[in-house]
Amino acid sequence: MSELVIWTYDWVPEGPRGFVRDMRLRWACEESGLPYAVRTVPFEGREAEHFARQPFGQVPFVNDGEVELFESGAGLLYIAHKSEKLMPRDAIGEAQTLQWIIAALNSIEMVTVPWWFLEITGAKENTLTSWMESRLGHIESALSERDWLAADRFTVADLLMADVLRVPKVRAFGDRPATEAYVTRITQRAAFKKAHADQIAHFAAGDAARA
Amino acid sequence: MSELVIWTYDWVPEGPRGFVRDMRLRWACEESGLPYAVRTVPFEGREAEHFARQPFGQVPFVNDGEVELFESGAGLLYIAHKSEKLMPRDAIGEAQTLQWIIAALNSIEMVTVPWWFLEITGAKENTLTSWMESRLGHIESALSERDWLAADRFTVADLLMADVLRVPKVRAFGDRPATEAYVTRITQRAAFKKAHADQIAHFAAGDAARA
Repeated sequence: MSELVIWTYDWVPEGPRGFVRDMRLRWACEESGLPYAVRTVPFEGREAEHFARQPFGQVPFVNDGEVELFESGAGLLYIAHKSEKLMPRDAIGEAQTLQWIIAALNSIEMVTVPWWFLEITGAKENTLTSWMESRLGHIESALSERDWLAADRFTVADLLMADVLRVPKVRAFGDRPATEAYVTRITQRAAFKKAHADQIAHFAAGDAARA
Repeated sequence: MSELVIWTYDWVPEGPRGFVRDMRLRWACEESGLPYAVRTVPFEGREAEHFARQPFGQVPFVNDGEVELFESGAGLLYIAHKSEKLMPRDAIGEAQTLQWIIAALNSIEMVTVPWWFLEITGAKENTLTSWMESRLGHIESALSERDWLAADRFTVADLLMADVLRVPKVRAFGDRPATEAYVTRITQRAAFKKAHADQIAHFAAGDAARA
C-alpha cells in the first residue's frame, strides 16, 4: 500500500500558522487513523515545478502512489473515500456528507473568505457583510436543530465546516450560540489538537531552519 | 431504477435565466444520457419546507429515490458517479476530475462570484479585482497547455469550469484567449445548448403561468 503524502510549505509567517489548509488533511488523517507523511515545497520563490503541481501556487496537495491531487476539499473527499470514519458508506449518508462538504466550500467560504479579505484590507465598509450575515444565519439555524451536519454522526463535513467557521474574524461575527458550541466541541477533538500542534511545530521548525 | 429529479424555481426574473444553477445539472444529465425530470418550488414566498430541503433557500437540489442532496457541485459529483461519460473510472482520472471540480467551486467561484457581486452593487473600486486577475491568469495558463482540464477528455470538470467562466462580466474580464476559446468550444456542445434552451423555456412558461 502506498503512503499518503501531504505537501505543504516549509515555512509560513506566524499569522496563518494553525490555519494553512494542510491542517484539514492532517486532521482528516488523524481522525481516520490512516498513515501519512508531510513533505514540503518552498514558501518563498515558488517555481514552475510548484505551479505544475498546484496551478494557483498554493498548498496543500497530496499524492498517494501515482494519484496526485490539489485543492484541500478534493483531498478531504479523497481521504474520506478511504475511511468510513469520515464518511458513511450508505447512499443517503454519503450524499448528506457530500452536500455539506460542498456547502462549506461553495456557500460558506465563498462568502467568508472574501469577507475576511475585505476586512483585513481595511475597507471602511465591508460590502459583503449582509451576505455573510445571511449565510451564517442559515448555518446557525441548521446547527440549532442537530449535533452533526450529516448522518447523525461526526463526518468529514463537520471537520471542514468547523475549520471554515473557526477563522477568528468569522467566528467572532454575530451572536450565534449553536455555531459557537459546535465549533468549540469539534475543535476539542483529539485529532484536531494533534493536527494543529503538528502544524504549529512544523512551521516553528521552519523558523529554526531559516535562522 | 429511480428517476433523478432536478428541483428548481417555478420562475425567475429575466436576468438570471440561462444561469440558474439547475443548468449545471440539466447539462450533466444531457451529457450522460441519464433520464431526469425537472420539478419546481416557488420562487416567491419560500417556506420552511424549502429551507428544510435547501438550508440557504436556494436551488437546485436533486432527489433520486431516497437520496436527496443540495448544492449544484454535490449534484454534479453525484451524477458523475453514475456516468463514466462525465468522470473516468480510473483512480488518476477521477482524482484529476475531482480536483478541478473543487478548484472551480473553491478557487475560481470563491473569487468570481463575490467580484461579480461587488461589480453589480456598483462599488467605485472593486477591491477583489487583483485577486480575480491572479486566479483567472492561472486558469489561462492551465488552459494554454491543454484542451481539457482532466484526463485528456471532456469531463464534468470542464462542464463546471466553463459554466463558472461563461458569466458575462467574468468572461469579458481581461485578455484571455485560451480561456475564451475553451468556453466557446464547450458551450457549443449539443448537451449545453439543449439544457440552456430547456431552462429558458422553463422560466418562460413561468411567465405565462403568472400572467
